[in-house]
Amino acid sequence: MPYFDHNATTPLAPVAREAWLQASDELWQNPASPYRASARAKIRLDTARTRLAEFIGCASEQIVFTSGATEGANAVLASWARTLPAVARIAVNPTEHPSVLEPAKQFFGDRLIWLPVSRDGLVECDAMKTLLEKNRIAGVIAMAANNETGVLQPWAELARVCATAGVEYLCDAAQWFGKRPASDLGAAGWAIGSAHKFGGPKGVGFLKLPVGAEGFRGQLGGAQQRGHRGGTEDLAGASALVAALAEAEQKKVFQESERLRWRSQFEWAVRLGVPGVTVIAANVERLWNTVSLLMPHTENHRWVTRLDKLDFQVSIGSACATAKEGPSHVLAAMGLAQDEAKRVIRVSSGWETTEADWESLAVALGRLENEFRADKGNLIQI
Amino acid sequence: MPYFDHNATTPLAPVAREAWLQASDELWQNPASPYRASARAKIRLDTARTRLAEFIGCASEQIVFTSGATEGANAVLASWARTLPAVARIAVNPTEHPSVLEPAKQFFGDRLIWLPVSRDGLVECDAMKTLLEKNRIAGVIAMAANNETGVLQPWAELARVCATAGVEYLCDAAQWFGKRPASDLGAAGWAIGSAHKFGGPKGVGFLKLPVGAEGFRGQLGGAQQRGHRGGTEDLAGASALVAALAEAEQKKVFQESERLRWRSQFEWAVRLGVPGVTVIAANVERLWNTVSLLMPHTENHRWVTRLDKLDFQVSIGSACATAKEGPSHVLAAMGLAQDEAKRVIRVSSGWETTEADWESLAVALGRLENEFRADKGNLIQI
Repeated sequence: MPYFDHNATTPLAPVAREAWLQASDELWQNPASPYRASARAKIRLDTARTRLAEFIGCASEQIVFTSGATEGANAVLASWARTLPAVARIAVNPTEHPSVLEPAKQFFGDRLIWLPVSRDGLVECDAMKTLLEKNRIAGVIAMAANNETGVLQPWAELARVCATAGVEYLCDAAQWFGKRPASDLGAAGWAIGSAHKFGGPKGVGFLKLPVGAEGFRGQLGGAQQRGHRGGTEDLAGASALVAALAEAEQKKVFQESERLRWRSQFEWAVRLGVPGVTVIAANVERLWNTVSLLMPHTENHRWVTRLDKLDFQVSIGSACATAKEGPSHVLAAMGLAQDEAKRVIRVSSGWETTEADWESLAVALGRLENEFRADKGNLIQI
Repeated sequence: MPYFDHNATTPLAPVAREAWLQASDELWQNPASPYRASARAKIRLDTARTRLAEFIGCASEQIVFTSGATEGANAVLASWARTLPAVARIAVNPTEHPSVLEPAKQFFGDRLIWLPVSRDGLVECDAMKTLLEKNRIAGVIAMAANNETGVLQPWAELARVCATAGVEYLCDAAQWFGKRPASDLGAAGWAIGSAHKFGGPKGVGFLKLPVGAEGFRGQLGGAQQRGHRGGTEDLAGASALVAALAEAEQKKVFQESERLRWRSQFEWAVRLGVPGVTVIAANVERLWNTVSLLMPHTENHRWVTRLDKLDFQVSIGSACATAKEGPSHVLAAMGLAQDEAKRVIRVSSGWETTEADWESLAVALGRLENEFRADKGNLIQI
């Protein structure tokens, strides 16, 4: 069953499974307790933190383990709301994930300004600069890679501009970590990630603090994690997260050019097999694993269901938005009409996905295209 | 190595380990995705939620899986701050866990009133009634069982009084679940728990909403968990949590009277072996697993370290407070002087702890007492 929904979640990587079990079996004591066994757990936790910091390119003191990127986004926005001036505005990329948009709206309300994006969903750096100069902007939010389209934002440039302007910057890198090298994110202000997007377990993630955020307090409670996040530390989860990221960083991100080629071949084959299909944001830099396809006809739910029967798992967009009404806010921000957005399917591979898997998915799409065309009774729009 | 720090955390129960692995290996898909494999994960998640609701005695719609009790406490206090009238006060038991106290202070500041407690740390129900009548109290917080002393609060009665008065009630039951029957907590307003306190993994817990809290939104983001908590659902964690609680509920809580006997025997033996020792709150109802000992001399850190060398793990109080300065706020609220609080050690057993383990710990304490007395050079205070 070729699984093409890695942007929703990934299977647990064997190295992560092993790390989780080892910590759960051997180092299950509370790292904050006052005896030798817990000191060993604490040391292992510190080691995990240091390894993660090394991949990202920051100090280990800047790493806060969380329950996932959603917690991280909520905590950063709550912190900004408390610490930024009461009149300060924030500028937000409209194609952010709901876990960023929702707290941004709740905490900043009408002090939220949308960043202009191109038809491809790219934040325009010059437009952002103008915004920063004209308005009382104290914080900027723009993700590293979009979960629906795979579009890569110029986040390194945005981060530099914000740093120069003395403006906070939050980079949701949940779809970036494990797919592209993490090493530059150290300089990118606040950054968040989720383990289950790169082979780690669900329920664990991290927040990278910017330099100088010693006073940050997310979840209030005990003094764990230098006071940044109360709550018993999840060593098993953190160890598994780091094991999964380490494998991706050390072995996989070097395979990117080959995977980009497979993705291109797939797009080429789909264009042949499904005349009239459009690859969203085809001409801008995107993740090697993600293809957002605007199908020429037939609602995306029907494509997804028919593909599922052929044992291919693809998605209609963000899993986090699947249960919600209405079409994707990401596609709307990119100028797609509502009826177009309802025809978009998202295909997202993993490192274990093979060239043959991509090929078989293209063949399946072509086959369904023929069936939909033949089955005129069900034909909605050509 | 007899482990006597179960109130800090517990080893992973084999049933929880198995449930975690099964979900991680077979049902790792995102429960919110739109294909059959994810529908199976969703069904399993719903089943876990229903089982948990049945143990607690509430509707499954009232259960929100979280990353732990700390998240739950923070989310409830944040929600109260948003939804209660701006002038409303809350009344808080002073022996609560830091994960409750810290957000209560942050969100309510000088609108927080302390509930009067007895010398044994018990919230006095009549005093609470008077408080509710005299002040503009809109919410009450009192835990089920204290993490440091094991003292059981009259939470069922407090919950009833609050319900009658139309006042919100939050019950931190992190130390109750898995040790005493969960079944009555369904009626106790807001209730929170953490899996790792009863044999589940770290990083997962739950919040039980009161009836009528459909609008509750904790972590903002996707529409997961009826919109109550955005973020990819951690099916493996939730399954493991429920497996651990189910085992405790179905097999263990019936063994309570035997365990209470073991605890009494231990207390009796320690009083013999360590003349002048005091069992904190000896004469009120406490958890079968917890003994808080005020030692007659020598700082608690030294007892803990010496016991550790004999391979007994005990604690000086809350693991969450270990890294903090100053003596326990719980003991201070119970009227202990600072120098007394520094001599208190916490002993907390688990269901797997044997009568022989308790006996060997009593013997070890007697042996250390003799060594401390003999070793006059190190003798601090007799």
